Amino acid sequence: MNADQGVTVWLTGLPCSGKSSLAQRVAVAVRERGCRVEVLDGDEVRQRLSPELGFTQRDRDLNVRRMGYVAQLLTRNGVIVLVAAISPYARTRQEVRAAIGHFLEVHVSCPLPECERRDVKGLYARARAGEVLEFTGVSAPYEPPEAPELVLHTAEQTLEQSAQELLCLLERRGVLQMMEP
Amino acid sequence: MNADQGVTVWLTGLPCSGKSSLAQRVAVAVRERGCRVEVLDGDEVRQRLSPELGFTQRDRDLNVRRMGYVAQLLTRNGVIVLVAAISPYARTRQEVRAAIGHFLEVHVSCPLPECERRDVKGLYARARAGEVLEFTGVSAPYEPPEAPELVLHTAEQTLEQSAQELLCLLERRGVLQMMEP
Repeated sequence: MNADQGVTVWLTGLPCSGKSSLAQRVAVAVRERGCRVEVLDGDEVRQRLSPELGFTQRDRDLNVRRMGYVAQLLTRNGVIVLVAAISPYARTRQEVRAAIGHFLEVHVSCPLPECERRDVKGLYARARAGEVLEFTGVSAPYEPPEAPELVLHTAEQTLEQSAQELLCLLERRGVLQMMEP
Repeated sequence: MNADQGVTVWLTGLPCSGKSSLAQRVAVAVRERGCRVEVLDGDEVRQRLSPELGFTQRDRDLNVRRMGYVAQLLTRNGVIVLVAAISPYARTRQEVRAAIGHFLEVHVSCPLPECERRDVKGLYARARAGEVLEFTGVSAPYEPPEAPELVLHTAEQTLEQSAQELLCLLERRGVLQMMEP
């Protein structure tokens, strides 16, 4: 993998599985090493690019493709792009991977009960109450990656441990220089 | 201006004024000098990010803001971004300028009769026939920039001359290294 080309690291997982926290933590570490890095957070990008879209399969796919387009432009300009997005459909993630080329899929894996226990924004509760429809994990499907480059079990390790694992992947792929001892 | 920061060069003007051709020509020259460059063409970005939007003032503004968001991400990662977009409303361009910071506004100025004579895609003809509504210059307004960094009169000079003028601006602003003699 050519570091000059950048890479998209696509963090997929259930709501509250820890995607955004992980992206932010890894971004700090990558920046400290002097590399260009951007976090594309699903919620934020949706607000900027797709406020009109809802949460049907069609609309989720459109949003994921738009994120993929932005990630592609950044990646081919040497940026390490950390995408944190539920992106529940395997086929759409595959499509984005094919378009971008330099792509690492990371499954941020956390059991549903633990995600629901965290419920950072109270959305699981609202989904169970039927106030939020088509909520991934409750009333909409999540298709886990079949062959991701990395699976992180965020219920079984600290944020710091997950971040280190992801940084190691970036080192192994030559995206980051080897860490100083 | 810090070259490491990138810059957005925003080409605004009537349909068929020569924005896209100029962006493509300048992109080749910038790339030859080893700088990172992206062209964001209004038509293409609209298709990728905003296919649901029409051509009302509100929809045009939304599209321009989305282009601005993408340009901003690229610019802060060291890319020279050439945006070719009618972007008819002065206030929205101003808003995008403020968000991006490193921003050069270029008015691609061409008299309406000459744009209409070129009519690359036959859209002026369809606008005059009433088949295309809200067409800039015919049935929708165009607000020229009041204080652009550069005005290019594309009816009075060749594409090559316009491209050289724009490249000189980039050199003067320190975005490109001075050309070898």
